Amino acid sequence: MAELSEAAGVPVPTIKYYMREGLVPPGRPTGRNQADYDQGHVRKIKLVRALADYGGLSIAAIRGLMHELDNPATELHRLLGAAQRTVTEHTEPRPGPHVEEAQRRIADLAARRGWHWEPDHPSFRTAVGVLSLLAEIGRQDMIDVLDGYAEAAERIAQADLAALGDLSDRERVVEVVVIGTALGDTLIAALRRMVQAHLSHELLGGHVEPPAR
Amino acid sequence: MAELSEAAGVPVPTIKYYMREGLVPPGRPTGRNQADYDQGHVRKIKLVRALADYGGLSIAAIRGLMHELDNPATELHRLLGAAQRTVTEHTEPRPGPHVEEAQRRIADLAARRGWHWEPDHPSFRTAVGVLSLLAEIGRQDMIDVLDGYAEAAERIAQADLAALGDLSDRERVVEVVVIGTALGDTLIAALRRMVQAHLSHELLGGHVEPPAR
Repeated sequence: MAELSEAAGVPVPTIKYYMREGLVPPGRPTGRNQADYDQGHVRKIKLVRALADYGGLSIAAIRGLMHELDNPATELHRLLGAAQRTVTEHTEPRPGPHVEEAQRRIADLAARRGWHWEPDHPSFRTAVGVLSLLAEIGRQDMIDVLDGYAEAAERIAQADLAALGDLSDRERVVEVVVIGTALGDTLIAALRRMVQAHLSHELLGGHVEPPAR
Repeated sequence: MAELSEAAGVPVPTIKYYMREGLVPPGRPTGRNQADYDQGHVRKIKLVRALADYGGLSIAAIRGLMHELDNPATELHRLLGAAQRTVTEHTEPRPGPHVEEAQRRIADLAARRGWHWEPDHPSFRTAVGVLSLLAEIGRQDMIDVLDGYAEAAERIAQADLAALGDLSDRERVVEVVVIGTALGDTLIAALRRMVQAHLSHELLGGHVEPPAR
């Protein structure tokens, strides 16, 4: 156990906790207080640690994901979807007169851009919720950003796909999807604000340029 | 007050609360329990309501923003920056061996893309934090998404700028920046996941297509 802790870089009590919670399988017992662990244990412990610490996942979410990961019958497409859903906040649209129109808009957008989509995907419902809220508060003008955002989302998802790398390594894929999606949202939001500040500076001038610029 | 409530679509107790908190100026007294309000009051009440409900801003944040809005000496570029900062989560990079390298990477990126930037902008620091964390956890491969994300951020910020519309209406500009930035992050994250699901489906096939596709 001490060697396992050193190899994984995770303290012994944390490893014991992971095992108690069923996130990491126990070792092969070799004596009263001894057990054998292999590289599979080391990798799994590192993965659980990364998902909890940097993906912000709950123990229950990690358990569900490990179950899919360890089940050979779970196809990679489904595993990717399960990993993505752990870091997806889902806001169901508030019922109202604008929901149907918003649904139509997002469905049209997906059709126009050739996206395969499912009407019960949590992110479809979330996008519908944002759009119907904008219509509800009379900010129809802000709905016009949709095509620009969709183009940007395609660029982002292509970069995400490239980062996935070798798809045969399922543990790596799960880690990259969870951490990349969680940290990626933060990185995208930060870069968006940097460009907003740049454009504002270009358009309206900073304090150092003459006003005529 | 009852007429004001009806015109703004905000309940009387909420309006009284806004006035008590100094978010909305009082009316011009016309009698013991009477006051005159104008269209400026109606607009301001609607704005405060929108910032609190849909931007998720605290009373203190709204008060600060109103102060900048009402100060004619605050240039539009500064007002936009103040509005943006109210909906910007700032995570300072954890000190570590990778921070300097991450700073260099983001600064290089900004220089390469011609972005005007300031090293103390909260979003610059946040982007540095994400990058140094990725390096720290050995996910160097995920740093390669940076250029794709930067391109996407440019597309997003251009759409955001177009949504701003008439820049002479400062109250509208504040509302669009705050709500657009907050709801925009959610919308972008949702579209990103929709395209990820689409690409996964394309690449790995769903359950309905033959595996050879």
